[in-house]
Amino acid sequence: MGGFTLFVFLTIFYICNAQDCVDTSDLCSSRTGLCDSIVGLQKLCPKSCGLCKDKLYKLTYFDLRARGEQIRWILEQGDANWEDIRIKQEDWPAIKPTTLTGQIPYLEVDGVTIAQSGAIAMYLARELGLSGANDLEAAEVHMVWETVQETFNSAGRAFVEQDPAKKQVKLKEYDDVSFPRLMKFLEERLENGEEWLVGKQMTIADIVVASFMDSQVWPKPLADLKASKTVSNLTSKVTSLPKIKQWIATRPVTDY
Amino acid sequence: MGGFTLFVFLTIFYICNAQDCVDTSDLCSSRTGLCDSIVGLQKLCPKSCGLCKDKLYKLTYFDLRARGEQIRWILEQGDANWEDIRIKQEDWPAIKPTTLTGQIPYLEVDGVTIAQSGAIAMYLARELGLSGANDLEAAEVHMVWETVQETFNSAGRAFVEQDPAKKQVKLKEYDDVSFPRLMKFLEERLENGEEWLVGKQMTIADIVVASFMDSQVWPKPLADLKASKTVSNLTSKVTSLPKIKQWIATRPVTDY
Repeated sequence: MGGFTLFVFLTIFYICNAQDCVDTSDLCSSRTGLCDSIVGLQKLCPKSCGLCKDKLYKLTYFDLRARGEQIRWILEQGDANWEDIRIKQEDWPAIKPTTLTGQIPYLEVDGVTIAQSGAIAMYLARELGLSGANDLEAAEVHMVWETVQETFNSAGRAFVEQDPAKKQVKLKEYDDVSFPRLMKFLEERLENGEEWLVGKQMTIADIVVASFMDSQVWPKPLADLKASKTVSNLTSKVTSLPKIKQWIATRPVTDY
Repeated sequence: MGGFTLFVFLTIFYICNAQDCVDTSDLCSSRTGLCDSIVGLQKLCPKSCGLCKDKLYKLTYFDLRARGEQIRWILEQGDANWEDIRIKQEDWPAIKPTTLTGQIPYLEVDGVTIAQSGAIAMYLARELGLSGANDLEAAEVHMVWETVQETFNSAGRAFVEQDPAKKQVKLKEYDDVSFPRLMKFLEERLENGEEWLVGKQMTIADIVVASFMDSQVWPKPLADLKASKTVSNLTSKVTSLPKIKQWIATRPVTDY
């Protein structure tokens, strides 16, 4: 079997390093092209190869951080060619019926629209080489995404609640159940001095956690979160990455 | 570039059809093996190739359909080697603190545990060749999963509500908002006579929708759903697939 493996890896090496590699963008524009068929290829190729680099990602969301911000961080960290389309709240009722699910954010790429935050985040993770070393690690990344999102949703339910008594109940659920569960889950993943949440390299799992923690001026002040040293350290590490640091410093300023 | 593409596809064809292909399971057992590095390879290979076929998937859930059933259908349709571990409700309080997120279902594979339904479903979709033709189709599959799950969660919130007045409010949200939104989304995907929800082949998007519809004895009787002809037809098509039909006929009988 060694011969087979060597043959395949030599093939990939040859493609990745070929002089005309920068001209392979035509392969990416077709949904049946090489880049899509062998989805691991892009990850194995050095970034300088330029394979699939010409794609334009158009992200549409409100002029808020909220559910859109984690995706913007992924696009920035992945060095993607992307457009940050921000719609006004007052324009939303007219736009809503034209969307796939009546919701934003959505991502447009290669003539296809992808709705739902998780689908967008995991798609971009794969495209930009931030989904881990293999499919099993990608599943772990997805698991982290879903667990963070449950906590985010719990905060969101409390945030939008207008009735003061009900709001207290929902905040209590967030404080006593959702948030501690997320912390326990994350701390266990980092407890053996692991540098990143999944595998040996940074993935969108780290980005999504850091983006969530960074947004927690409400309902829990960020200072409180520092009790969880490992998660706080991870957040600092991600927000100190040059591209994300630059994004935070220059992004549009919004309340939440 | 034609030469490159031909070279790669010939390589894949050679690997897929090689006599000793059934002996490649060692490649799959390593997380850095060929099968994980080139994640498209398994999909391109004919099923008879046997690549990655020896993996054992252990699914743990309650003795219920609920959130576990869609995953069981995926495992059955994907012809996976899997174990259906069902825990008793009375054993759950003792098991809960030992789980990653305090939740089930979870999947054990290659010594790794994956929690969260979406992470499990999308991982298995990739492993079993049911995630579409490429990464963009996989993103569409993921989008369908997330949209179905939102509706499932809306039904779930109404189901577990004990207070009769609050239950009515939650049922109304399901009936008037969540369920119609899902139907509109699915019908639009099928309106041009499309055979499947994503691309030109069956994916877990179809399985997840059919499993959800099949479970809708509550809160909406299945008869009501037949108003949506296209979605009803899709459900029938999936539940008529030999492996899924066989599973439904022989699975443990539970209330929901």
